[in-house]
Amino acid sequence: MTYALGMWIQHPLTLPAMRRGFHLITREVVAAVPELTQVQVGLLHVFIQHTSASLTLNENASPDVRRDFERYFNRAVPDAWPDFEHTLEGPDDMAAHIKASVLGPGLTLPVQAGRLALGRWQGIYLCEHRDHGGPRRLVLTLQGE
Amino acid sequence: MTYALGMWIQHPLTLPAMRRGFHLITREVVAAVPELTQVQVGLLHVFIQHTSASLTLNENASPDVRRDFERYFNRAVPDAWPDFEHTLEGPDDMAAHIKASVLGPGLTLPVQAGRLALGRWQGIYLCEHRDHGGPRRLVLTLQGE
Amino acid sequence: MTYALGMWIQHPLTLPAMRRGFHLITREVVAAVPELTQVQVGLLHVFIQHTSASLTLNENASPDVRRDFERYFNRAVPDAWPDFEHTLEGPDDMAAHIKASVLGPGLTLPVQAGRLALGRWQGIYLCEHRDHGGPRRLVLTLQGE
Repeated sequence: MTYALGMWIQHPLTLPAMRRGFHLITREVVAAVPELTQVQVGLLHVFIQHTSASLTLNENASPDVRRDFERYFNRAVPDAWPDFEHTLEGPDDMAAHIKASVLGPGLTLPVQAGRLALGRWQGIYLCEHRDHGGPRRLVLTLQGE
Repeated sequence: MTYALGMWIQHPLTLPAMRRGFHLITREVVAAVPELTQVQVGLLHVFIQHTSASLTLNENASPDVRRDFERYFNRAVPDAWPDFEHTLEGPDDMAAHIKASVLGPGLTLPVQAGRLALGRWQGIYLCEHRDHGGPRRLVLTLQGE
Repeated sequence: MTYALGMWIQHPLTLPAMRRGFHLITREVVAAVPELTQVQVGLLHVFIQHTSASLTLNENASPDVRRDFERYFNRAVPDAWPDFEHTLEGPDDMAAHIKASVLGPGLTLPVQAGRLALGRWQGIYLCEHRDHGGPRRLVLTLQGE
């Protein structure tokens, strides 16, 4: 057990507009927190400040996994579902809100010896649920020692 | 990079019984952690100690978004689904457990300059999945510097 | 409000291969972090380093709840769904990836007076989404004071 002075770092990260779908962003996230290399034990919190895009962790290799995510979620939460009442912002809007909550707005990731302690196949996905979502703002919070 | 003595705060928050559905509770959560204003960089963890209610982050403006959440999840996870084996506690119970895990029991939110660093449209929802859920206990844990 | 030196602990935990389904692992997790008893206020982060198994919190009593989870998710995300493109690793693989993201790879849990501050009915589930998933690696990160 170690007692030490903790470190807190917070950086914004704005990602450029991406097409609707699931996109690997591990590299962009890591590059935005250069202090990661100085943390022996800690946590990185990755947060998206939107309600129609989300973050998840999944396979970082085959792009067909990301295409299947898009296919599946479009079937599970259909655009323009007839029972939706909130339709003013377009047929993809309410479905986007629901997908965003199912996948979630944040990830907390362990940090070990200056690196994210992800599994070999894990990568961070930006899940863009809107047809024209625009740039997306993230807040990265690193803490550790 | 700053090294400083960190602060840990933990408060319970009991919310009164709410009807089945999705309810904005950002104001109640913030009011229950007055020390938030003293944190320059940190995280607030919001946790619900139940398995048939949950927490999520979504649109804080139109109430029709919250009604659509209720409609969608009732269709996606039907009460009294015929294959459910766990039916002793009523037709809404097992569906409530599943919805609770899909949406999740906790949220970690960035804190910046004494405030939650939420997006403009983000609000905290209490998701009450039972017909008569009763009061709900939350644990709020604030850390930062 | 207290200012004190924080504590950071990180332990790996490898769980033996479990059959496809939902398994209570609260006891194994707590046993792997003996320093928990020394934390007055803190958080325990539980993370799984895989993309076809996940973690959630739900009812710790009736085993029929865990069987209903398995029934429900198999219906909601069918194996060998005809639209899946990523089929090389077997009929259960792509469905496992999606279930893993819906339930999520991590849990953050409040710690209070040397114990997890869970609700009376809450237990940690390892959600094994593959037919033959093998052992699963977790990373447990404890912080607090």
